[in-house]
Amino acid sequence: MTGCDWCHLSEEDREYLLCDSGCWSVFLADEQDYIGRCVLVLDRHCGSMAELTDDEWQDLLNLVRKLEMCLKTVFGADLCNWSCLMNSFFKDPEPCPHLHIHVRPRYRNPVVINGNTYADDAFGHHYTHDKGGRIPEEDMQAVFIRMKRWLDS
Amino acid sequence: MTGCDWCHLSEEDREYLLCDSGCWSVFLADEQDYIGRCVLVLDRHCGSMAELTDDEWQDLLNLVRKLEMCLKTVFGADLCNWSCLMNSFFKDPEPCPHLHIHVRPRYRNPVVINGNTYADDAFGHHYTHDKGGRIPEEDMQAVFIRMKRWLDS
Repeated sequence: MTGCDWCHLSEEDREYLLCDSGCWSVFLADEQDYIGRCVLVLDRHCGSMAELTDDEWQDLLNLVRKLEMCLKTVFGADLCNWSCLMNSFFKDPEPCPHLHIHVRPRYRNPVVINGNTYADDAFGHHYTHDKGGRIPEEDMQAVFIRMKRWLDS
Repeated sequence: MTGCDWCHLSEEDREYLLCDSGCWSVFLADEQDYIGRCVLVLDRHCGSMAELTDDEWQDLLNLVRKLEMCLKTVFGADLCNWSCLMNSFFKDPEPCPHLHIHVRPRYRNPVVINGNTYADDAFGHHYTHDKGGRIPEEDMQAVFIRMKRWLDS
């Protein structure tokens, strides 16, 4: 759809593309407030889960299984928080939402990346959605490489 | 599974059962911070989305479609926020999570129930997860009846 930024992601946006299932592109999220946090973006313009085709839905389940296993194996996640929200699009009086899904892995024990310790202080509770989560570029790269290696294998 | 409260819901817990799809029971949530908020509980014990069968997953999509349409038609919801979290189970050192999914309808315009006005003050932003949402019993009943009538028709 013309005018939808999510339909025309730039090369920069796509820097942290982990995998493409055919229907969905999985990106490592800019915010790593929960290490391994990703966004699954539908490859076509579609505004809500209700409008997904059966094939896109089945493909999503395959990705859910793959990503949960990846995050548990690579970083020791205890569970994953999944959400499909789309709120920001509705700030616009004429919203043009593009379907995407968030996954935040949650950790009982801290994760260590390049010697830096990342603790999930709210484990057992709702995720904090506004704590910010930029991490050093070298840690971002390390998270990306470890996940991508697992997903590609 | 023995010991899982969600496997043995009481009659009281089931008071606000809106529908049962065969795999999932849909309850109007006790917290009506977002009018029409529901919880979808899997009818068998299962700990994560990754462990759902293909049939349960397909049944979930049918419910997503039905509930989004219901909430838009009955109360004028603009979108729905979907989430699968399961955090509270992990307060226990030996968690025994039972899969359930939250849906919070979001509203640009207030909803009026029995003359009481319910505004979604954070529309366009992440839902508030701790604002509490008990509403008068007669409003709860009215929300339940209007949704159940639509879902049964």
